[in-house]
Amino acid sequence: MRVLAKAVSELARAEPGKMIELSGWVHRIRELGGVSFIMLRDRSGLVQLVLEGKTDLTLESVVSVQGTVAVNDKAPGGAEVCVQHMSVLSRAEPDLPFPVNGDMSKVGLDVILDNRPLSLRNPRIRSIFRVQSTIIEAFTEYLRREDFTEIKTSKLIGSGTEGGTGLFEVDYFDRKVYLAQSPQFYKQTMIASGLERVFEIAPAYRAEKHDTPRHLNEYVSLDVEMAFISSEADLIELEKHLLAHIFESLVRQNAEDLAAWNATVPDPDAVFNAPTIAHDDALELARGELNRNSADGSSRGGAGQGFFEITPEVERLLCAWAGREKGIELVFVNQFPRRHRPFYTYPSSVSHTMSFDALFRGLEITTGGRRQEQYQALLEVLPRFGLKAEDLKDYLAVFKYGCPPHGGFAIGCERLTQKVLGLANVKEASLFPRDRRRVSP
Amino acid sequence: MRVLAKAVSELARAEPGKMIELSGWVHRIRELGGVSFIMLRDRSGLVQLVLEGKTDLTLESVVSVQGTVAVNDKAPGGAEVCVQHMSVLSRAEPDLPFPVNGDMSKVGLDVILDNRPLSLRNPRIRSIFRVQSTIIEAFTEYLRREDFTEIKTSKLIGSGTEGGTGLFEVDYFDRKVYLAQSPQFYKQTMIASGLERVFEIAPAYRAEKHDTPRHLNEYVSLDVEMAFISSEADLIELEKHLLAHIFESLVRQNAEDLAAWNATVPDPDAVFNAPTIAHDDALELARGELNRNSADGSSRGGAGQGFFEITPEVERLLCAWAGREKGIELVFVNQFPRRHRPFYTYPSSVSHTMSFDALFRGLEITTGGRRQEQYQALLEVLPRFGLKAEDLKDYLAVFKYGCPPHGGFAIGCERLTQKVLGLANVKEASLFPRDRRRVSP
Repeated sequence: MRVLAKAVSELARAEPGKMIELSGWVHRIRELGGVSFIMLRDRSGLVQLVLEGKTDLTLESVVSVQGTVAVNDKAPGGAEVCVQHMSVLSRAEPDLPFPVNGDMSKVGLDVILDNRPLSLRNPRIRSIFRVQSTIIEAFTEYLRREDFTEIKTSKLIGSGTEGGTGLFEVDYFDRKVYLAQSPQFYKQTMIASGLERVFEIAPAYRAEKHDTPRHLNEYVSLDVEMAFISSEADLIELEKHLLAHIFESLVRQNAEDLAAWNATVPDPDAVFNAPTIAHDDALELARGELNRNSADGSSRGGAGQGFFEITPEVERLLCAWAGREKGIELVFVNQFPRRHRPFYTYPSSVSHTMSFDALFRGLEITTGGRRQEQYQALLEVLPRFGLKAEDLKDYLAVFKYGCPPHGGFAIGCERLTQKVLGLANVKEASLFPRDRRRVSP
Repeated sequence: MRVLAKAVSELARAEPGKMIELSGWVHRIRELGGVSFIMLRDRSGLVQLVLEGKTDLTLESVVSVQGTVAVNDKAPGGAEVCVQHMSVLSRAEPDLPFPVNGDMSKVGLDVILDNRPLSLRNPRIRSIFRVQSTIIEAFTEYLRREDFTEIKTSKLIGSGTEGGTGLFEVDYFDRKVYLAQSPQFYKQTMIASGLERVFEIAPAYRAEKHDTPRHLNEYVSLDVEMAFISSEADLIELEKHLLAHIFESLVRQNAEDLAAWNATVPDPDAVFNAPTIAHDDALELARGELNRNSADGSSRGGAGQGFFEITPEVERLLCAWAGREKGIELVFVNQFPRRHRPFYTYPSSVSHTMSFDALFRGLEITTGGRRQEQYQALLEVLPRFGLKAEDLKDYLAVFKYGCPPHGGFAIGCERLTQKVLGLANVKEASLFPRDRRRVSP
């Protein structure tokens, strides 16, 4: 019966000399005075094996061992296994392109991504995806508890609702279809169906030529939609609860993974201190923050002319301000101008909308808002956006036959992972990232 | 503060005359002796509203009402709400293409799918997707408890591992990529990375021209992969536990949804009685079953020549046999011939493999098996399948550097939903199904 590495320390104290079986990867080999010390890696962690004599093992080979547990305060974890028998289940070739057990921060990002099957073996890199798994789990857990239903909708759409820009085209039998940029229309359909509260976790696609540390052409979208809201304030409240639950779950389940990145998540309670700032005020605030920095001499220059939209620089400035003033680098910006938002966004005035973004540690992680549910209002607004009712028949059918007030948002899973761990590039938070040049592995 | 429909019955008994607020859809209107009886539908169910006089409401309009609760044994649920105030949040146009509150079994499948935004409002149709949500939840819950990590992998692949047949082609900037048929290669990468146990819930694509009640061109694949197994028997054992947990969860959470379809799930304990039959024996068994049926006069004819592969007819015969003999229509067929399985399947002999299918209620819902983890063995087998090592560099890198014995399987989410509820066509179990002709809504 196999035992996991993490159990050895306790076993050695409780039953020293007990014979156990372990399986895993050869993480490190050290030979010293006629004895081989092998660090064995399994899904639970690392444990030291001690063998008499030299070994012809190669790093990364998969082995199964039988041996006796012993307390050894000098061994990592304070215990080790004295090997009686070892069998090699799968021998690794010795020509590793880089040391899996080394400091991967010295290996370039392209090398890490080109060699994903190997780089993912590095415990610190692998920990990114344990954190991501918990983010997905906690997101799901909170929403199910609040009576949300999980849905799975098609990623192949017959036409782009807002035109074909930014869409990847797919050869679908004798015609062209597109990869969905978001499940929003399907979420709205399910709201109107009477489920009222839905969420979806699925890939989303953007055919944008960006190559920046914040963009992916394929990402995992954590999507939420909820009926019977009054304004975007209800959605911001929901997102605060979601983030607090995610942070709380990470502290509970991923302490070691966070420590590997020297990362701390915000205090779950502090999430509720996060300010909501209207778009136009946010631009002013960012200008003030920039001037403050340049007065300090800590920035590259003044911002005499101010900002006209929420740029990446504004996102960083607002989060820095909130970190200082509110104790958390999380800001909700609401009330975006109508011209910055899609046709379906619910207006809050002639010029502004019930929409919001969430900015976390200097990066937009969420876009959302209340949607227009009034059929006549939708028909009226379409021409102003250059759209025709004929082209949106399926979409409009949702509203033609009664739809409650509703809205929703999406959290970018990789961006949230990136910011939780403080990764330099969002691609590090995608197992097999896709960008303009990268389509494998 | 809004109250849900399902709470009214208890409130009426505890606090008759209490004023409450309800929101939902106008499901049905009946006028009788100067009084209007309105069935209001929300995410929790239906409740009767009583209004003095006639009403100009349209079916499917969304309303919010205030009224007092009252016990009424003649009302559905034994209670009703006497409306004091009603506001129409969203008026439905009166030209519904079919009655949402009617018997949808009389509406053709194409009409149901063409009008998804409306047909999904029918409570019985909507219940399919509450069942599906529980299937996904229970699948996840069981695996997380067993220390599996959830992963999200790319659906855009640079090349088809087994050639380009059956793949949809995507225009990706200046090149062609493909939609993934399965995440198997990525699951195996994560096994070898040391996570050891992973699962993924994601869309999968098959560019096959089938148009049958059992095929979808896009489906949700419930994928599992596990290290340190001995044979496919370990995987069959895992799938039994998963199915038992899914069935148990459905009984607990979806009793009403199951009742709406007159569906019963197998006793979770009976899952462990499901037989495992070797492929060649299964063909013989199916032949015997067919002869038995024709002797009964209950089948269309004899099977003198027998079967040469597991056809849909064989799947039905085997499940019928198991239902009669083992008390559950679930059969695991293992030991498929090598020529029927992909190159990476682990051989159990010169001619057969450590592979299996799961058949449930006459339909294959799972394919899986142990994979070959030995690098040299993979290199040797490739030419026999017409494949070249150069084309599989990324795949082979997983095994070149040490990979434990492992295997996995995938459950088709829509097929399992279909068979749980006894739906005639798998498309009924997909929110927005894609087939050769259908790419919208």
